[in-house]
Amino acid sequence: MQAPPVQRLVTELGKLPGIGQRTAQRLAFHILRTSPEEANALADAIREVKERIRLCEVCFNLADEPRCRICQDERRDTATICVVEEPNDVISIERTHEFRGRYHVLGGALSPIDGVDPEDLKIAELFRRVDGGEVREVVVATNPTTTGEATALFIADGLRERAPSVTVTRLASGLPVGGDLEYADEVTLGRALAGRRAL
Amino acid sequence: MQAPPVQRLVTELGKLPGIGQRTAQRLAFHILRTSPEEANALADAIREVKERIRLCEVCFNLADEPRCRICQDERRDTATICVVEEPNDVISIERTHEFRGRYHVLGGALSPIDGVDPEDLKIAELFRRVDGGEVREVVVATNPTTTGEATALFIADGLRERAPSVTVTRLASGLPVGGDLEYADEVTLGRALAGRRAL
Repeated sequence: MQAPPVQRLVTELGKLPGIGQRTAQRLAFHILRTSPEEANALADAIREVKERIRLCEVCFNLADEPRCRICQDERRDTATICVVEEPNDVISIERTHEFRGRYHVLGGALSPIDGVDPEDLKIAELFRRVDGGEVREVVVATNPTTTGEATALFIADGLRERAPSVTVTRLASGLPVGGDLEYADEVTLGRALAGRRAL
Repeated sequence: MQAPPVQRLVTELGKLPGIGQRTAQRLAFHILRTSPEEANALADAIREVKERIRLCEVCFNLADEPRCRICQDERRDTATICVVEEPNDVISIERTHEFRGRYHVLGGALSPIDGVDPEDLKIAELFRRVDGGEVREVVVATNPTTTGEATALFIADGLRERAPSVTVTRLASGLPVGGDLEYADEVTLGRALAGRRAL
């Protein structure tokens, strides 16, 4: 019983992840209430991002030029590469302000069940970057999941073979800061115990 | 450090209600991953809704023609009008499949503090519809809030004066179905008690 344009907008909004039917309806009504300028700014931003964003030719992060902002930044250390699964992982790590090297975005994690093989990820491209000889450390920051761990092991093996002088590291696993032992799952707690440090 | 088009999309998405910075980021990455066709379908739906949707000339519900779908539907009872605050309330009531009459959308609720006076709502228009003589019942379905109740009383008073033969009703207040007495606030519980029915 809704006017088709409203129904169409609700349907399109409902395709976004985590947006159910009711939220989509609420967002649609919000868009209906805002000024045309504001609504069009959102529509334009969606179109623009699809038209202008591509993958960085060096690290495969999102970019609006051939190279991403980080690869263009001369102050970033080229001897350290942090390997992540997706572009949003770059944002998460950048937020910590703890990493001053470069990135390499794989575009996913190895998962034979889902048909994701090494050729489907930017792994060969990572190896070629390391072949250049400038890299001294590769921080493998794939997710601490089954597929992320498998990907980390595959990359570590490949690097050991091709560039034995390069240090390969992995992010520490353990208790989240501010977390509570009571609520930690046993795998995380086991990792935290195994990785305990002297005080 | 994000490419400006991505940042712009995150900013625009973050203006939507209930969408924080992180959710906006997640939605933006989803849009980046989808096909251009799908992303443009969303952008087009936003533009189209702003261009084509207006208020129904009879009931002020959303419409893409001079009259909304419900006002165009000959099978809907013209003798019963359900008065609601906003167009989304129409959707909520339609979902129950319990109402076969017509609607009247006020466009808000009376709130002198926020400067919403009777002239700012479609109250005079409601009275004119009732003046036609065809209406026998007005169901006042404004929200069970202070402003919604004030609006309901104002409308009931006005109708009693202008059209004493018209029955004015209000939605029942009480415990939500499936709810638990333990979690009901005291006002709701008080209403439920006051409105108790013989079994």
